Amino acid sequence: MTRTSLNHFHCSMARTADIIGDKWSLLILRDVFLGSKTFSQFQKNLGVARNILSDRLDKLVRNEILERRRTRPGVERYSYHFTDRGSELVPVLIAMMQWGDRWIFGEGKEPLELNDQKTGRPIQLIKVLSADGKPLANDEMSASPGSGADSSILTSFHGKRSKVSD
Amino acid sequence: MTRTSLNHFHCSMARTADIIGDKWSLLILRDVFLGSKTFSQFQKNLGVARNILSDRLDKLVRNEILERRRTRPGVERYSYHFTDRGSELVPVLIAMMQWGDRWIFGEGKEPLELNDQKTGRPIQLIKVLSADGKPLANDEMSASPGSGADSSILTSFHGKRSKVSD
Repeated sequence: MTRTSLNHFHCSMARTADIIGDKWSLLILRDVFLGSKTFSQFQKNLGVARNILSDRLDKLVRNEILERRRTRPGVERYSYHFTDRGSELVPVLIAMMQWGDRWIFGEGKEPLELNDQKTGRPIQLIKVLSADGKPLANDEMSASPGSGADSSILTSFHGKRSKVSD
Repeated sequence: MTRTSLNHFHCSMARTADIIGDKWSLLILRDVFLGSKTFSQFQKNLGVARNILSDRLDKLVRNEILERRRTRPGVERYSYHFTDRGSELVPVLIAMMQWGDRWIFGEGKEPLELNDQKTGRPIQLIKVLSADGKPLANDEMSASPGSGADSSILTSFHGKRSKVSD
């Protein structure tokens, strides 16, 4: 149990999932990315109950993913914007979108297209790349303890590199 | 309400979030990626209740993200493996992990390192790239209806390109 807790608190994926790993938080972030800013815009797009939306927005603000700004001084109306920290979650959202494009809708049936604004050309498919820029398949990667590995990670690797799943 | 439903069923991000947008599903996929295969391995790593684990594994199998294989003929023991469809979710997982590395643990404190197995060098940070390979900031992208856009998407764009959030 201690080991599990250590693993959980000492895993970047798990900690990120704690913050954004629920459907509504992900959909709010998608909406912010696509230009929505206000509570009523989110509610209209998501059709979610006010208390749930409120809860998720608070959590995203508390975790410094979104910043809440007063739209006018003295008025209780707010708009929501990505912080720097939050804006770096966009690759996660786009990777999810591209997966759905490919595996749910299929080629030629993509609901939305993301383009390079300057050239109008579609962005690339998000891939895992090696240091010299070559796409890596899952079985071409290995995991090893990072510089911040705790004892539970070191123990589970026995100091060795481990091949990831194929 | 009709419009919201259309949006939801006609959005790749939302549909992907329906399948993997919960903490436990994401952690199971992380575990499969890192080499876990069996119910008891997942349970040990995640410390999750058996019924929740069972439910999430069933959902991932039903959605063809994971494949359940009998470990031996005639014995009720199974192992879980990525399908092709499931293995293409790995960029989502790695983007989440890298975000946590950077924004939760910080540079030099990463719990885990992912390397190119052949060279031993760390993989690149996952980024959104233009067609000619240049990293794109969020405000350098625009969204437009894709070839499979439905009427709700076409209406909300009025046939125009839309700048995404900055």
